[in-house]
Parts: sequence; C-alpha cells; structure tokens
Amino acid sequence: MRFFSDNAAPACPEVIAALGRANVQDAAYDGDQWSAQLDARFSDLFETDVAVLWVPTGTAANCLALTALCLPYGGVVCHREAHIQADEAGAPEFFTHGAKLLLAEGPGAKLTPQAIRAVIDPIKSGVHWVQPHAISITNATEYGLVYTPAEVAAIGDLARTRGLRLHMDGARFANAVAHLDCAPAELTWRAGVTALSFGFIKNGGMGAEALVFFDPDLAAATRIRRKRAGHLQSKGRFLAAQLLAMLDGDLWLRNARAANAGAALLAQAAGNRLVHPVQSNGVFLRVTADEAARLRAQGFDFYDWGPGEARLMVSWDQDEAAIRPLADAIAGL
Amino acid sequence: MRFFSDNAAPACPEVIAALGRANVQDAAYDGDQWSAQLDARFSDLFETDVAVLWVPTGTAANCLALTALCLPYGGVVCHREAHIQADEAGAPEFFTHGAKLLLAEGPGAKLTPQAIRAVIDPIKSGVHWVQPHAISITNATEYGLVYTPAEVAAIGDLARTRGLRLHMDGARFANAVAHLDCAPAELTWRAGVTALSFGFIKNGGMGAEALVFFDPDLAAATRIRRKRAGHLQSKGRFLAAQLLAMLDGDLWLRNARAANAGAALLAQAAGNRLVHPVQSNGVFLRVTADEAARLRAQGFDFYDWGPGEARLMVSWDQDEAAIRPLADAIAGL
Amino acid sequence: MRFFSDNAAPACPEVIAALGRANVQDAAYDGDQWSAQLDARFSDLFETDVAVLWVPTGTAANCLALTALCLPYGGVVCHREAHIQADEAGAPEFFTHGAKLLLAEGPGAKLTPQAIRAVIDPIKSGVHWVQPHAISITNATEYGLVYTPAEVAAIGDLARTRGLRLHMDGARFANAVAHLDCAPAELTWRAGVTALSFGFIKNGGMGAEALVFFDPDLAAATRIRRKRAGHLQSKGRFLAAQLLAMLDGDLWLRNARAANAGAALLAQAAGNRLVHPVQSNGVFLRVTADEAARLRAQGFDFYDWGPGEARLMVSWDQDEAAIRPLADAIAGL
Amino acid sequence: MRFFSDNAAPACPEVIAALGRANVQDAAYDGDQWSAQLDARFSDLFETDVAVLWVPTGTAANCLALTALCLPYGGVVCHREAHIQADEAGAPEFFTHGAKLLLAEGPGAKLTPQAIRAVIDPIKSGVHWVQPHAISITNATEYGLVYTPAEVAAIGDLARTRGLRLHMDGARFANAVAHLDCAPAELTWRAGVTALSFGFIKNGGMGAEALVFFDPDLAAATRIRRKRAGHLQSKGRFLAAQLLAMLDGDLWLRNARAANAGAALLAQAAGNRLVHPVQSNGVFLRVTADEAARLRAQGFDFYDWGPGEARLMVSWDQDEAAIRPLADAIAGL
Repeated sequence: MRFFSDNAAPACPEVIAALGRANVQDAAYDGDQWSAQLDARFSDLFETDVAVLWVPTGTAANCLALTALCLPYGGVVCHREAHIQADEAGAPEFFTHGAKLLLAEGPGAKLTPQAIRAVIDPIKSGVHWVQPHAISITNATEYGLVYTPAEVAAIGDLARTRGLRLHMDGARFANAVAHLDCAPAELTWRAGVTALSFGFIKNGGMGAEALVFFDPDLAAATRIRRKRAGHLQSKGRFLAAQLLAMLDGDLWLRNARAANAGAALLAQAAGNRLVHPVQSNGVFLRVTADEAARLRAQGFDFYDWGPGEARLMVSWDQDEAAIRPLADAIAGL
Repeated sequence: MRFFSDNAAPACPEVIAALGRANVQDAAYDGDQWSAQLDARFSDLFETDVAVLWVPTGTAANCLALTALCLPYGGVVCHREAHIQADEAGAPEFFTHGAKLLLAEGPGAKLTPQAIRAVIDPIKSGVHWVQPHAISITNATEYGLVYTPAEVAAIGDLARTRGLRLHMDGARFANAVAHLDCAPAELTWRAGVTALSFGFIKNGGMGAEALVFFDPDLAAATRIRRKRAGHLQSKGRFLAAQLLAMLDGDLWLRNARAANAGAALLAQAAGNRLVHPVQSNGVFLRVTADEAARLRAQGFDFYDWGPGEARLMVSWDQDEAAIRPLADAIAGL
Repeated sequence: MRFFSDNAAPACPEVIAALGRANVQDAAYDGDQWSAQLDARFSDLFETDVAVLWVPTGTAANCLALTALCLPYGGVVCHREAHIQADEAGAPEFFTHGAKLLLAEGPGAKLTPQAIRAVIDPIKSGVHWVQPHAISITNATEYGLVYTPAEVAAIGDLARTRGLRLHMDGARFANAVAHLDCAPAELTWRAGVTALSFGFIKNGGMGAEALVFFDPDLAAATRIRRKRAGHLQSKGRFLAAQLLAMLDGDLWLRNARAANAGAALLAQAAGNRLVHPVQSNGVFLRVTADEAARLRAQGFDFYDWGPGEARLMVSWDQDEAAIRPLADAIAGL
Repeated sequence: MRFFSDNAAPACPEVIAALGRANVQDAAYDGDQWSAQLDARFSDLFETDVAVLWVPTGTAANCLALTALCLPYGGVVCHREAHIQADEAGAPEFFTHGAKLLLAEGPGAKLTPQAIRAVIDPIKSGVHWVQPHAISITNATEYGLVYTPAEVAAIGDLARTRGLRLHMDGARFANAVAHLDCAPAELTWRAGVTALSFGFIKNGGMGAEALVFFDPDLAAATRIRRKRAGHLQSKGRFLAAQLLAMLDGDLWLRNARAANAGAALLAQAAGNRLVHPVQSNGVFLRVTADEAARLRAQGFDFYDWGPGEARLMVSWDQDEAAIRPLADAIAGL
C-alpha cells in the first residue's frame, strides 16, 4: 500500500470523464470553450476577478508566477526547504533569468514576518546587492503545516510595506483550505497574495494545475512566457476541462478533505512520534531504521525523510479502509 | 467542417483508452512502467538504440533538442519560415540561453545543402561572429513538403563535414514517413539526424510528443533540462501511455496515412490552384478573397495564409466522406 | 600605414592627461567626483536632462540599452548588417535573455520607415509570435552613411505610433554630427531616440563609451544591470574622466571632423570606385584583388570587405599628410 | 586618511607609465603585442602552461570563470559571505544562465572540506536537485584570512574525488601570496585550482584583472563568452599592458607586501580588538559606535562592518608614515 507520494495516486473518475467530454474538435491552444471559462469559474471561487492559466506542472506554475513578480536581477525570499529552492532543479533561476532565492529559516518550512525580516533587513540598498522583489510561501508547507489567513496576512502586510509581492505555492492549497475550512479568498488575496499556484494534480488531477493571478494584469505577459517556455499545449482543452471538473461541486475540496482525514487517522495512531502537527495530508514520523523496515515488511511504502524520519503521504482516494492497516501498524510498533 | 488546424482534432480512441489503463497508481514523474518502456519501443521502431523523453508540446521537444545540440553562444541554421523561428515565440532563445537562429532560404520552407552553405560559408571564424553549432530541418515542412532520405542525407553529410549536429522537427514526421513509405531509420539517423522531435499530438495524440535522441548520451543532460523547464510531469505515465498506444500496431502510421489521403483528395480537386505539391496532410491553395468567402459560406473553416492563399489541414479522423464536400466545393469554385 | 580600423588608433593626449589627473584617491565604482559630473555635462550637450552611464565597450552600451528597451520575450528591429546583429557574438541575446533581432533590409545598412514596416507589419498579434518592442539604428551606419535628423525623426514617428522605443548605436555618432553639423539634440531625442550608445573609443578615447538615456528613468535599472554584467569598474573615475575630457572644448567633435576630412580626401581620390557615398570616416571602395595587393605592397593596411571591396577607416589622428599617400595611391590604381 | 577601500587608491606609477607606452597604434581587441605576451608571462610566473584573459573587473573574472566550470543547471559551492554570493548583484547567475550558488559556512568566510561536504553530501542524485559542478573559494577571504597551500590542496582533493572543479577568487591573491611567501603555483594548480581570478586593481592597477586558466583548453570558449558579455575591449592593449607592468619585477608582490605590512602595523595597535587574525591587507576591528566616531573625527575613513565592527583596508601606496597615525589613534582609544 502506497504512502510514498500523492503524485502516485490515479486521477479521479470525474477528471477522466471530463477528458472524454472534451475530446471533440475545438480551437487549438487555449482558444477552446473550456479554457474560456477558467477566469469566470475561478473568479467565482475566489470572490474577485482573477486571471487563470492552466499549466502542466507545479514547477511551471511556481516559476511563471515568480517570473511575473520578480525581475531577473531581483530576489525572492523563500524558506530554505521550499520546493522552489530544494526540489525544482533550479527551474526558478531558469524561468526568471537568474533571480536569486533569498533563504529564510523556520520550523516546518514555515515563514514568519520575523524570519523574512531577518533576511531582507540586512540587505543594503545599492547596485551591489540583490534586492528582494517578492516573497514566496508554501501553503500547506512541505512539512504539511498550514498558514492561517492571519499568518498569511501578517506576511502580506510586510510584503506591502516593503514593496514586495507575495506568491503562494499551493501545490496542496486544497488541503490547507480543507484544514482551515475557510474561504479561499481569506487565505489568498484578502491576505495580500498576488499569485497562487493552485495545485490539482496531487489532489486527483491528471496533468493540469492552475496559475491564479489576483492582479489580472499580470496574466498577459505570463501567457507569452507560458508559450515561450513550451507550456502552451496544443490541445489545451484537456487541461482546462480537468480544472473545471475539479471545481464542479467542489470536488477539489472533497478530495482534499478525504486525504486530510486519512492523515489525521495516521496522526492519531502516531501519537508522540509526530515530528510536526498534522494539518494536511502529510505525516512526518519519527521511526528507527528497524521500525521503518518492519512497516515496509508489512507492505507499506513511504519516503525516508532523513535519518530517523519517515514521510507518509495520503492521497485523495485512500479511505478509512485503506488507511486503517497502516494506522494499526504504526500503533503496534 | 474544420480544416483549420490538425491541432483542433480530437485524440483518437486508442489514446483515450490507454489513458484509462494508465490510471492506476505508479511511481511519479518518469519512474513508472510505461515511461520505462519508451527507449526499447522506440529503439525497435528506429532499428537502433535511442533514448526517448516524453514532453507535452512540440515546442518543448524542439527547444530541448536544440539546447542539447547548440551552446548558448552558438547558432542553429534553420529556414526563415521554420516553426522554431516563426511560431514559437522565441522559445528556442529561451531554452538555449540566447543562441541565434541563422536564417536560410528555400521554397516551401525546405532547405538544401546549398541554402545552408549560403548561410554558414560567409561566417568568419573568430569570437565576434556567432558560429553555427547545429542545423534544424522540418519534415514534413511547414508547407507540407517532404524531405526524402537522400535529401536529408545530403544535409546530414554537410553537417558532419562541418562539425554541426542535425535536428529534425518532426511535428508531422508521421506524415512524411507515410508519404515516403520508408523506414523511419532511413529518414533519420541513417541520414545523419542526431535528434528528432517526433510529433504525435497533431496525429491523434492528446498531450505527448517524443523527443528521440539517436545519440543516447545526450539524454541525461536533457532529462535535467526537462525538469528545469517545468516539463517533468508528476504523472508522466499518462504521457508515456499515449506514446506507447501510438506505436501499438503502427497507429501513428495509419493515422498519418489517413490524413495524407484526405489531403491528396483535396489536391486532386485543387489542380493548378496548388501553391506547393501536396506530400503530407496540408494543402496550400491559391484562392481569391471572394473564393475564400464562398468556401467559408459553405461551412468550411481554414487558415488564411497571407493574401490569396489558404491553408487546409486534414486530420487523422477525416475520412473520404468528411473530405469530399470540401473537394467538391474547391472543384466548383 | 593603417586604415584597417579606427580601433587601432591611439588614445588622444587629452584623454591620457585626464587619466593622470584622475589618478588620485576617490570613492570606488561610480561614486567619484568625475562620474558625478556626467549627467550634468551630457545634459548640457544634449540640451535636455539625460542620465549617463560609462561602459567600457560599444557592445556593452548597445546591449544594456536594448535590455532597457526590450523585454526578454520581445524583438528589436535592426538592419541585417547592424553591428548588434552581425558583429557582437550574440551579446544582445545574452544581455536581453533571448530577445529576438528582427532583421530589416536597406542599402548601406540604413533603415527607413518602409523597411521597418516590412518587418513588423506582417507580425500577427498573439503569443506565438515575437512582438517588436524596439528599433535600433546605427548612425553613422556600418557603411558610413549618416541619417539626417529628418530621417531619424521619420523612424522615431513610426516607433512612437507603434509603441516601440528607439535606440541609436552611435559608435560613430560623433562622425555623424560632424558631417551634419547639427545639434546632437536634433539627431537624437528631438527625433524620438530613447537611448544612445555614444561612442568615444574609436574617436580617440581609450576605454570608455557613454550610454545616454533621454528618458532618465531608465537609468536606475540599467545601473543594476551594469553591475550584474560585471561592467561596474572599481575605479570608474578613470572612465568618467575620459568622457569628460572628450566633452571639454568639444574634443569629440574636433576629432570626428578630422577623421571625416581624411575620409573625404580618400573619397575624392576614389571617384567612381566608391560603393557608398562617404559621409563619415569610412570609405568603401571597389578594388580588384590585384589592386588591393598593390595598395598593400605600398604599405597600406585595410580590411577586405567581401570580394572586390575594401574598407578604409580613417582615425582622428590622421591628418592630410597621413592621408595623402593613400589618396595618391588610389588615384594611381 | 582613507582606509575605506583598496579600490579607492590610485593606480601605481608603473601602471600609468605602461599605459603611455601602449598608446600607439596596434591591432584592436586582443590582437596586439601586449595581449600576445600574457600567456607566456603568466606561464612563467605559475611554472606551468596557463591561458590568460584580461577583463576589467573582478566580477567579470569570477563569473567568466564560473561559467567555464559550471553548466547552467549546476551548482557552485561557495561561502555564504563570498563576494560572488554577497556582493556581485547576481552576476554569477547572469553569466552562468542561472546556476545556483550552494552556500557553505565557516568563520572568516573560509571554507574547509568538512564545510563543503556538509553542503554537497546531502544532495540526492536525480534530476530534481541541483548537482554541484564546482567549488569557489576566495584567497585571501573577504575577511582577510589566507588559505595555505595545504588548505587549498585539501579542498582540491575533495573537488577531484567528487568530480568538481575548483575556482579561486583571488581579488587579493597577491596579498595571500605575500603573506605566505610561497610560489603562486603552490597555492593554485598544484593544489587543484582550475581557474584563478587574479586581481590587480585593488593592488595598484587601474582597470585590468587576469583570468588565469590552469587548464588552457577552457580559455577558447571563455574568449567567446568574454566578447558576448561585452568585455572584449576595443583597445585591449591598455589592459594587457597594465598586467604586464604588474608582473615586471614582481611589482604585484611588492605592492601587496606594502599593503600587508600596513595592515600588520594596525593589527599590532589593535591587539585584542581584532575580529580575525590579520593575514593580508584588511583589518576587522571591534569598536563601539562612539569609538568609531572618534576615529572619524580624527579624519580616518573606514567601512562600518555591521554593528560594533569596522573594516580598515590598507592600500599598496600607504607606507608606515601613512599608517602610523591611525595605528596610534586605535591604540589610544
């Protein structure tokens, strides 16, 4: 049974069905009827006018967002363990033409205004030093921690007062919203977020993420950059249709709730083995090498997260029946 | 009835079915069982060891190929009307970090050794002038003309003697092979081609092209660059499965033959209105504005290709019944 | 006797003397008293507020200017034989992060509004096609032709109506002004020029050119980019002092007049051998290989400009006595 | 009296004299007789075949070196306070097309094999993570500490065993050699250094640094990149002549010894106020704000290095008479 990665899960049936419905002739690229609905549908969800682009990966979403918010000679403050710094092979530097990631610290890969100020306050003004242009936070973080609307707003305030723009890597934004049970607007533009990488693939999608601009004027140049990066797919209707299917009936939220619930079950079983509080669909566990081996021997697959730690990811399609055996195994260690 | 673009066609049923079969859990990125088969399956097709990467667009395939063949300070000889120069929004310059496209001439967007020499022979050696590193040709060309194996080999010979590498943009490679009825190997590595962008999307695919390296050593760095460009999809099995479905039973060739046959029907009807010989699935027609309007009034959709010319693209799914009305309408102009 | 390149000439004594005077301690980079005078001194010369940066090469001046005027995904219209296209090793692509040079035609490397429209009018709007952001013209051109203020203004008008910005590569701007005997303002900002690469090195300088922004707001980002490109010299006072020495008493204009006068002498001798009218310090001559050999046998050094043509460049330090022998030799061919 | 920056010092008379001698006509760019001598003269100095390029700034030297040693998708290990990371405005990212600087720790901005391993050992192999390609160390460091040949060799060994290449930022290489009284070869290629940015400007030069490749094959591509970055000066003889003047009679070493001696005097006076041992020409001092103000009131100029610290830089032209007043003032605090 797999708890290795939420990328390993299949796409959910509604997404597959949507692909079938979109498999008709229509205009190429993003000229089709599905792509045409994105702005309106996401504007409804976010209760404000947004501009939305489909892209096939979270890395593309993040990097196109950063390129819209940071000039080639600027810097982006992010956590040392942020996905854009740690796991994207230098893609941000590629897309931005060499902007510098300015690394901040904080437990659970979570930033605070104080942590950000520790990075930007010492930067002298002048042409010798890379000046910050933007801040990027991940919600839920790479360790599954969730920023509340108030926490985002505190960072948004700092960004505003320093003339910086704020990006949210929301590869697991759905899980954060599900955890908080708040309006998506509260967690984003009302808290000062300019651009959101809204992830769907880990949450039951197949190959489409949404890049959401709360400042719609930023979208025009990004549409050009999407083409220039080879990301304007010929049959974009298939990506748009996936996103729309996810919005229908709040499928994205139901899937995320399911995954979070599974993680909560594991957390309960794990007790004080937990490295971080469980607030989304990831569970970080203290286990000895021997304990990890025993779990694997029982057929559970997961990621070794450094020495003495394991990462268990729950997917949208794992219900209590799928989770229970692992919960029991953990409890029985 | 649409003859506007082969990108407007739906994906063919075998591809959709393959997506369904691939919709199970498997390792993320390209660690899955479908991606693992690509090298072997394409090596069979090409009768030599190749390394293959899936990518979601022809632009990504072309640009990753060029980046493997040309350093940032080098140049790539291509036709002035090549897709990489004329229709990719500067993506080659983005991926290669600013390599220069060196523009050659020739009717029908087709290059010859002579046309290439006209570009590269005058380039003085020295650091002031961008030196050519590679040649890129499109087969079939943007005007539907097909290079024969001998024509490719003549360019391949030139490339070899000048220390250049040869890329083939094969967005409609299938149509070229179908027209020539030759072995894919004859048209590529045996003729000196180093890297091929093998297109499937216009030919009944959904969102996967194959980047084929006949020098497999080039693939390792390209896999890194694919990730760095945000093109390493999380659930890559869906792309790999599409490509494999296309290879099964030579579906790619059957689809291309069907499209070519439709274009041949139109060509017959067009007679001396043809701007170029019809060798693949595109038909370029001389029509007055009035004639174009009359065709459109009958429900036919197509692309105005400059003043007095129309481009009609036939897709894999248009059989004789679908083509005949337009053929008759053209004959009746 | 050298007529090979105006880069081969020594620096003039006033420049050397200025270096000596600047050889005292002062603030590093561009914080010194000489650099501080540049804006005011060039503003006087151009009769408007300008912002000026010293840079060590014309290539750096051109490329920093283009980067200020054109985004990475935009295009710059220039002549096919413009220095930025033909002789700068792809530096514009490097500095701009891959902007595309859009090549126009015209005799003597000179552009007209018509020639520029022939390039930009066919560009469809949309994300697939690189849109023009700027125009770059060279005055005097690579063939020594001079744009009049009216000719520049016609291009400036076109630029303005199309939302493009206008760069002038003035590696030999001094020679153009000397030829026209006009105010520098007439030839630049009053005619619609946004940024000027004002060359001094070929005109008796040692290692400093001036990048002049007629829109001073463009300078701030360019100062950052200058540093980022390694062009912010530690002891910038030596560059600033050279430029100021050139402005003192219009040394730049006297030097250019001297060089132009020499070229005029050669032109007289050349008669109908001239390939282009001689309007600055370059003379392009029709000579057979045998004639060229005879000139060389007499000790004259020059550049073979393709088959049957020779380029003779006159420098600021070549007076009539230095020119006369070559003029006689040409007349005697 | 200035102790603010060694960049503030004038150029030494021998350099100025050399400029005068080079002020004759000669071939442009680096085709002149002075540039032609560089390889041989530096090969003598380093007792091995080297290839040498002049460049006008340390930033250009560092960045061209890194670009020769690290691909765009690779990483360069350096100290968090290295000049390339902290003071070059993102120039390394610009020149390398976005390579990532991988930041290591260590007192006095000095790296050890252990500190480097702490950065590179945790990097997993695979396309998701930027792999190290090179290491860059600064000798003397930004805090004036000197790596001994053995210390460099230990890092060189690590580099070799990991397949990395080693760059030395030698903005104050002369001061390091003067301190160690060792052969330049010992401190560089014999210890595993591939490329050295050999600084002369802070040491009495005007506007020329030497980029030294101990693997001469790396120079050819770098010559192209130098042009492409706008750093191939038209009258390169003036840069080459400066470098040659510096080598004549070991002027570089005499200047460095003079500056080091001045710093040693200050160090003696500073006693336990020293933040770091003084091994070159920089002195880092603990001073209160009040003490700093008192020094300034006596006419001494220096750099505030964070709260409670001052940086005093001694230049090549400051003899004991110039230093003594500050030494006395420090002693008298």
